[in-house]
Amino acid sequence: MKQPAIILIRPQLGENIGKAARAMLNFGLSDLRLVAPRDGWPNPDAGPSAAGAGSVLETARIYPTVEAAVADCTHVYATTVRDRNMPKPVVTAGEAACQMKALSAAGEQSAIMFGPERSGMTNDDVALADTVLTIPVNPDYGSLNLAQAVILVAYEYFTVRDNTPAYLPAHPEGLASKKELVGLMEQLETELTAKGFFRSEGRRGPQRRTLRNIIQNAGFSTQETRTLRGVIKSLVHGRPE
Amino acid sequence: MKQPAIILIRPQLGENIGKAARAMLNFGLSDLRLVAPRDGWPNPDAGPSAAGAGSVLETARIYPTVEAAVADCTHVYATTVRDRNMPKPVVTAGEAACQMKALSAAGEQSAIMFGPERSGMTNDDVALADTVLTIPVNPDYGSLNLAQAVILVAYEYFTVRDNTPAYLPAHPEGLASKKELVGLMEQLETELTAKGFFRSEGRRGPQRRTLRNIIQNAGFSTQETRTLRGVIKSLVHGRPE
Repeated sequence: MKQPAIILIRPQLGENIGKAARAMLNFGLSDLRLVAPRDGWPNPDAGPSAAGAGSVLETARIYPTVEAAVADCTHVYATTVRDRNMPKPVVTAGEAACQMKALSAAGEQSAIMFGPERSGMTNDDVALADTVLTIPVNPDYGSLNLAQAVILVAYEYFTVRDNTPAYLPAHPEGLASKKELVGLMEQLETELTAKGFFRSEGRRGPQRRTLRNIIQNAGFSTQETRTLRGVIKSLVHGRPE
Repeated sequence: MKQPAIILIRPQLGENIGKAARAMLNFGLSDLRLVAPRDGWPNPDAGPSAAGAGSVLETARIYPTVEAAVADCTHVYATTVRDRNMPKPVVTAGEAACQMKALSAAGEQSAIMFGPERSGMTNDDVALADTVLTIPVNPDYGSLNLAQAVILVAYEYFTVRDNTPAYLPAHPEGLASKKELVGLMEQLETELTAKGFFRSEGRRGPQRRTLRNIIQNAGFSTQETRTLRGVIKSLVHGRPE
């Protein structure tokens, strides 16, 4: 299955190319394409910033033009924050991720283009794209750098396929049974009665109910219930020799 | 409406604090809290990396301990990549974003904790969290740096689509603040120490952590926390005349 390619157009700093490679590999992407990197290629500043993602740099392909870089692609996204006023659909990173997943499944090669650090893509670059990909940011402060833009797009692609359950149980080893919880309640009530905690027979019912609700609703595991029984015993009797 | 706070625990490099501030502001977050930054505060390396997000650095609050930093919070997430084997729910960044939206809407203060660059959070740090937040990454290459982790969490919060609360708080009248929970933990530890509950200095740390996790995860309300403090006092000292 073809993964989306990441295309960096005329990137300026080798350090940013390395960081982009690292961002890609964190989320399972490895098809890096560089269009006319300013300082040539290979760039000695890229490797140290890649932090273990050197494999992505080693297999990166270099192209003289954007046209050449996108030649084998059927759907290309232009990442931009500025409003381009171009007659193209505009999608969020999340929507683009959904589309690219469908494209990958259909055997299509998709790609996401990112412009140079300082100036962004030219209108000629954007004209080669099918779709504008926009990353929603704080309208009062939009200041994403190149590697940050890459990591957000890669993250969206990775998580759109993520099958990790959103919620894992807090106590895989087993919640306490009601019998265990009642045992804890009764032990606590016995000790509190001996200590005169319940102020009167009339107050005893409501106070007892309050304590039982606390224990009931806390979601204790079997092991935690056992620990708490030891705690109560220690508080009253100290540690047995 | 209270936005989630970002808590950096013992951050090492000022540059990374600046980058985290920039990542936050890109996605509308501004409540930055620093616990014992290694090189003190203010740090001259932070400003240049913040790239216009200096306002976040200027209003950052500094705390000596994690306990102090989370004191006003009712729901705290620990960001971690390693498996902690702790009895806490584990959620993805996306699910955490949904939860935090619901918490914000209910007027609750939530927070996301990030550990030091090199070592990550200690188990004692994680014990103060309600929930573990995990960012799904490439299983063959997980290499997120601090600012990248912050930006992904902030991005998820900013872009969370569904505003329907995923769940309603169990205690509409008010979950206990972390300060109240730590007060309960400390009272219990003091009494148990006096009773010889902790078997040895070596066992003390793990036993203490177990108890703190039990209290942390039970979802006690302010009123319940007060009741339990009375219970401990009665168990040890009996009811005062």
